Amino acid sequence: MTGPGTYTITAADRGSMARCGVLHTAHGAVHTPVFMPVGTQASVKAMSPRELSEAGVEILLGNTYHLDVRPGIDVVEKTGGLHRFMGWDGPILTDSGGFQVFSLAARRKIGPDGVEFSSHVDGRRHFLGPREAMSIQRRLGSDIAMVFDECPPYPCDREYACQSVEKTISWAASCAGQERAPGQLVFAIVQGGAYADLRRRCAAALVEMGFDGYAIGGVSVGEPEDVLLGGIRDSLPPLPAERPRYLMGVGRMTQILEAVAEGIDMFDCVMPTRYARNGTAFTRSGRYPVKAAACRFDARPVEEGCACYTCANFSRAYVRHLLNVGEILGVRLLTIHNLHRYMEFMTEVRKAIAEGTFGDLRDECFARLRKNEESPPGAGQEV
Amino acid sequence: MTGPGTYTITAADRGSMARCGVLHTAHGAVHTPVFMPVGTQASVKAMSPRELSEAGVEILLGNTYHLDVRPGIDVVEKTGGLHRFMGWDGPILTDSGGFQVFSLAARRKIGPDGVEFSSHVDGRRHFLGPREAMSIQRRLGSDIAMVFDECPPYPCDREYACQSVEKTISWAASCAGQERAPGQLVFAIVQGGAYADLRRRCAAALVEMGFDGYAIGGVSVGEPEDVLLGGIRDSLPPLPAERPRYLMGVGRMTQILEAVAEGIDMFDCVMPTRYARNGTAFTRSGRYPVKAAACRFDARPVEEGCACYTCANFSRAYVRHLLNVGEILGVRLLTIHNLHRYMEFMTEVRKAIAEGTFGDLRDECFARLRKNEESPPGAGQEV
Repeated sequence: MTGPGTYTITAADRGSMARCGVLHTAHGAVHTPVFMPVGTQASVKAMSPRELSEAGVEILLGNTYHLDVRPGIDVVEKTGGLHRFMGWDGPILTDSGGFQVFSLAARRKIGPDGVEFSSHVDGRRHFLGPREAMSIQRRLGSDIAMVFDECPPYPCDREYACQSVEKTISWAASCAGQERAPGQLVFAIVQGGAYADLRRRCAAALVEMGFDGYAIGGVSVGEPEDVLLGGIRDSLPPLPAERPRYLMGVGRMTQILEAVAEGIDMFDCVMPTRYARNGTAFTRSGRYPVKAAACRFDARPVEEGCACYTCANFSRAYVRHLLNVGEILGVRLLTIHNLHRYMEFMTEVRKAIAEGTFGDLRDECFARLRKNEESPPGAGQEV
Repeated sequence: MTGPGTYTITAADRGSMARCGVLHTAHGAVHTPVFMPVGTQASVKAMSPRELSEAGVEILLGNTYHLDVRPGIDVVEKTGGLHRFMGWDGPILTDSGGFQVFSLAARRKIGPDGVEFSSHVDGRRHFLGPREAMSIQRRLGSDIAMVFDECPPYPCDREYACQSVEKTISWAASCAGQERAPGQLVFAIVQGGAYADLRRRCAAALVEMGFDGYAIGGVSVGEPEDVLLGGIRDSLPPLPAERPRYLMGVGRMTQILEAVAEGIDMFDCVMPTRYARNGTAFTRSGRYPVKAAACRFDARPVEEGCACYTCANFSRAYVRHLLNVGEILGVRLLTIHNLHRYMEFMTEVRKAIAEGTFGDLRDECFARLRKNEESPPGAGQEV
């Protein structure tokens, strides 16, 4: 029973809904709770596939809309599919383009059958609906395809949220009927904004159709922390325990801990990579700016005790210098470290769940991280 | 006899002055003829030290002037010297800053004791003379320090060239008397512009002082091909055969072949790295633009038959896409390939000299490369 879609729960926390599992895909197994780095344009920014593997990355996220704009799906398809194109042999999850309905709001028109975009690059028109999004993801050959949904903004009024839920349900039904790539799984997305009953209605309707997994969407779009947590709690009850649950675009380590405690299995976020490009290092005890003058003569690694390539070989002073003079290697080295930290953090989470110490880890991490993890602007998803 | 400075000629071509050798430094041996990638700001642009080793790189070039401006020599010194700072355990040659006398001509004033620069970054004043340049290179801890010279522009009148030679000789004498880092070698630089007698006079005067190696400077500054070759031929006769000879800032593969045939042992140039950033691939049969539309659907590697990480794992279509959307990985992958090609080319040159087939290799390379290796603007040294 390890064909694509098999999901085995391997451990469950007694003090929360946290659990560990193994999700099998056409390109290998994924150990949950898992963090998926974002490879919007068929590249996790600044990283090579080898470096991703070394950081312990098991699964990547790719982006339907962006790949459709550049290089074009035909290029990826004709050169052997997204895995071969990127040189990444492991699992890939592709989003459906639905998030761009939100993030590129000024550039699209939503109709009953989908959304018309004008490309952010050259203004060329692209139409995405459930049929197009599934067809693109089939041609990309991703391991997990996301249904095409409508992600409403925050805040949004009840009427808009309601319409968006109905559209999301109807589009999900349409997606379910489309042809898939061999072994490709399809995850549905729960919408409903900040309205608990809409979230429940959406989740229940999707579960009735029977998907391989379920995502919680419409989060990490600027809402306060308690609304995010409410969105998770409102969406989860109808979802079957035996299927993986994915919280889209989240996020911060404290958010991940809270979500794992609610029973979330999968995460993606641009934070570790985007922050690296801004010169911010993630460590066990929080974040700090490597470009700061305090690091000028600092011969210590970016994080003491870290085993990543960056920390094993280079000083803060060097990484700071590279970032300050605009050398590509600076961004590379900090991205390597930040991703390593994120993946190591997820390993700690899985280990704690398996060993029955998740509650302790959570308390300890909160005490360590909260004070040094202020809410950053635009930390969430890649547009 | 393998202490720093030992130079053993291991093979000599019968049809030309080409030779193979092993130069021992405080950080290991260098097999000549050798190509040194340029790490101006303590980084070979886009590459990690691991990738440099994998490409077969044995020795790097670092830059006194640029490191003095940023991060400051005190930073490099206090964090353990240039090798530790860069995470590079192999040999490093540092230039003296003399080239910036030429390349930043608008920003400096030449006096009898050295040159006053205003930094290209913040306008801050820096003074470099023989004492300062040697002191900086000692503090950086490079394996090979270059004397502080004056590199005249091309063209330049005889009087200017004459003065510049006298200054170069007098500064070289001053450099010879300065303290060195443990095991540090010092190479002198032959100037003299396009004037054969000045080149000979300069070389002879430097040889009399007895340096560990000799460089030919004032080349790759915009002069025609025959003037470059003339500069080499005019400079070499006084130089002792048993010491390494370094042609600064050159260059193109055909130029390297010609210079090796004259007896040159060492080269540096930004071409493989700079061209990668512009999207140009080097191959056995010449250069081509990977960004070109012709590569859009091309599933072949950047160079067929190449064993580098890029060619083993990715298609032209992918590298083209990454370059076109501005992903860092695009520049990285093409830099890896171009440096691999350069290092492999040097391996072929050494092998041909050792096996007595250098003449054949030279003829064959010229036939292959000449037509596809037009003279590029600004191909030479990093400013």
